[in-house]
Amino acid sequence: MHISELDTPAVVVDLDILDKNLSEMAAYCAQHGLSLRPHTKTHKIPEIARMQIRAGARGITVAKLGEAEIMAREGLDDIFVAYPIVGSGKLDRLVDLARRGRLTVSTDSAEVALGISDAARGAGVTIRLLAEMDAGLRRCGVQTPDDLVALAQYMNRLPSIEFLGFMFFPGQVRLPPAEQAPVLGRIDARLQEAQEKLYRSGIQVRVVSGGSTPTAYQSHLMKTVTEIRPGTYVYNDMNTVTIGATELSRCAVTVHVTVVSVAVKGRAVIDGGSKTFSSDLLRGGEGRGFGLSVERPGVILESMSEEHGHLNVEACPGELKVGDRLRFIPNHVCTTVNMHDEVWGVRSEEIVERWPVAGRGRVR
Amino acid sequence: MHISELDTPAVVVDLDILDKNLSEMAAYCAQHGLSLRPHTKTHKIPEIARMQIRAGARGITVAKLGEAEIMAREGLDDIFVAYPIVGSGKLDRLVDLARRGRLTVSTDSAEVALGISDAARGAGVTIRLLAEMDAGLRRCGVQTPDDLVALAQYMNRLPSIEFLGFMFFPGQVRLPPAEQAPVLGRIDARLQEAQEKLYRSGIQVRVVSGGSTPTAYQSHLMKTVTEIRPGTYVYNDMNTVTIGATELSRCAVTVHVTVVSVAVKGRAVIDGGSKTFSSDLLRGGEGRGFGLSVERPGVILESMSEEHGHLNVEACPGELKVGDRLRFIPNHVCTTVNMHDEVWGVRSEEIVERWPVAGRGRVR
Repeated sequence: MHISELDTPAVVVDLDILDKNLSEMAAYCAQHGLSLRPHTKTHKIPEIARMQIRAGARGITVAKLGEAEIMAREGLDDIFVAYPIVGSGKLDRLVDLARRGRLTVSTDSAEVALGISDAARGAGVTIRLLAEMDAGLRRCGVQTPDDLVALAQYMNRLPSIEFLGFMFFPGQVRLPPAEQAPVLGRIDARLQEAQEKLYRSGIQVRVVSGGSTPTAYQSHLMKTVTEIRPGTYVYNDMNTVTIGATELSRCAVTVHVTVVSVAVKGRAVIDGGSKTFSSDLLRGGEGRGFGLSVERPGVILESMSEEHGHLNVEACPGELKVGDRLRFIPNHVCTTVNMHDEVWGVRSEEIVERWPVAGRGRVR
Repeated sequence: MHISELDTPAVVVDLDILDKNLSEMAAYCAQHGLSLRPHTKTHKIPEIARMQIRAGARGITVAKLGEAEIMAREGLDDIFVAYPIVGSGKLDRLVDLARRGRLTVSTDSAEVALGISDAARGAGVTIRLLAEMDAGLRRCGVQTPDDLVALAQYMNRLPSIEFLGFMFFPGQVRLPPAEQAPVLGRIDARLQEAQEKLYRSGIQVRVVSGGSTPTAYQSHLMKTVTEIRPGTYVYNDMNTVTIGATELSRCAVTVHVTVVSVAVKGRAVIDGGSKTFSSDLLRGGEGRGFGLSVERPGVILESMSEEHGHLNVEACPGELKVGDRLRFIPNHVCTTVNMHDEVWGVRSEEIVERWPVAGRGRVR
């Protein structure tokens, strides 16, 4: 089936671009001796996770236990749940996962680590832990190398826990890659300080896990880093393009929509709004618009209702009519894909795959 | 089960508040002789649609065909698809729905109306049409009463179409209800002009369908209106509270979350972010924050990652610890609920219902 026959709105993945994105990241990691553990929150599709593994990834990252369960059910192993697991219900599910394969969890607190240890001991399994250090985002993570040492020492003593090292997420670094060296250098200095203090405390550090698509291809500037967890690179989006982390030609996902109204002068309405694209604003640039029109740069996706995309067509009056199809590259592909139950894989504009977004909605 | 036993994040509906919201709107409509046709996009749950019908609603409104299909499958009849239906795939589904029950569609264009007529004629069914007139939102709708007459005359001549009247959506009116009279008066003057011109053209107008929760209880100020389509009133949210359309005590939905990190001074992290709440900004007030903490007004849900809610807790340092549970009233309940596969119905903090959000993800 040709993509023009797809009913809209539809999320379409160009598999040739996807292949390029996967192999380029894998090649970069191989070249620099980095482990690649992609964050699958971007796609939430076991088939793409397997493609990432085949391309050279060592394992995968997820944010939620529910995502880990979907991936494990589909045969993925060596899963890192990069999220603090809190509460007895989740701990029961965590040890179930640990019975089935290699499982790692991160946290920045002794209480979460203790909960995991207790659950693992009760179930007779071992769970691998990473301590989380803040690298400047001010979200999660202990604040100083000394705090990291204290947490690592605590984790290292816990039964049924294998302490692996530490992780960080440099999500605040949204500079163009060519300008990242100074800030990544400062982060690396802190990582080094932490690593040295851990060694001096007699604690083995086997993993220092970094992250983030915007910094991914500069990861070699952080000498301490052993592993990276980029997510968005698999698809890319207007956010990664706008900060210069990739090019439009590397955006694998487009949202296909249809014009349903042109009754208001200077405007047109498409059949996708915030429940199709998500409301995520463009980070960077002027921060305006909710996606880029691939074929018609004069068409601005200016605002959204839930099911209506409001196009400003003042730059191209009369160009659009009801029934016209358009494609948009979304601002933030992770939240866009999360709106949909399925995506369509295409090669040369022919649909060759239909993938359920199996991890979507697994909020717990 | 008590709500404190629910794993988080979880969307919880207080059924006592829901009942009040449903009965109050139904009573208002009955008092003023208005038909109530609630927009079910807010909840997307057939059981709640049936509660709305039992409370006095004449039928329901949906935005997408997929939502209509779910509702029809669950026995709902007299469905208004308030959305232009474009494309052969959707037209096939539309006539399937029309075979099963009373079905109405709106559009602002002759080409969409013709497509519906052709499909209905081919299938041997009759579909009811409303012409859409813009009431100032500049989204969909013909721009003048004369354009409305021309479109209505066209629709009225189409085979297999029953022309009912016209609809509008005053989504731009976000003033406090007490201040709405002048703007609703201006809208009503246009509606009246349109109605009179239609009558003079010999066209029967049986339905003038208005909308929107913020204006719902002022609908009697628009004498031409015969029917209203509020959606959000069923749950309410910080948007409707902030513009003064309701009170906090009438917000039926809270999102229950758990604190998972307090490592960063002045901050805490909860286990729900933009994939739990949606990224919809607060419309009105200062436009800041992504929800109101029910129990702890000093806690500000300041920003969000996909799975992390970033709390500013500078006003209450040390108050929160890992494992604490919080409830938030979301900014925009329609897009929040759309993130979730299920909601929990509670009375007196005991869970008495689990409802799948059956219409979620029906983007086509």
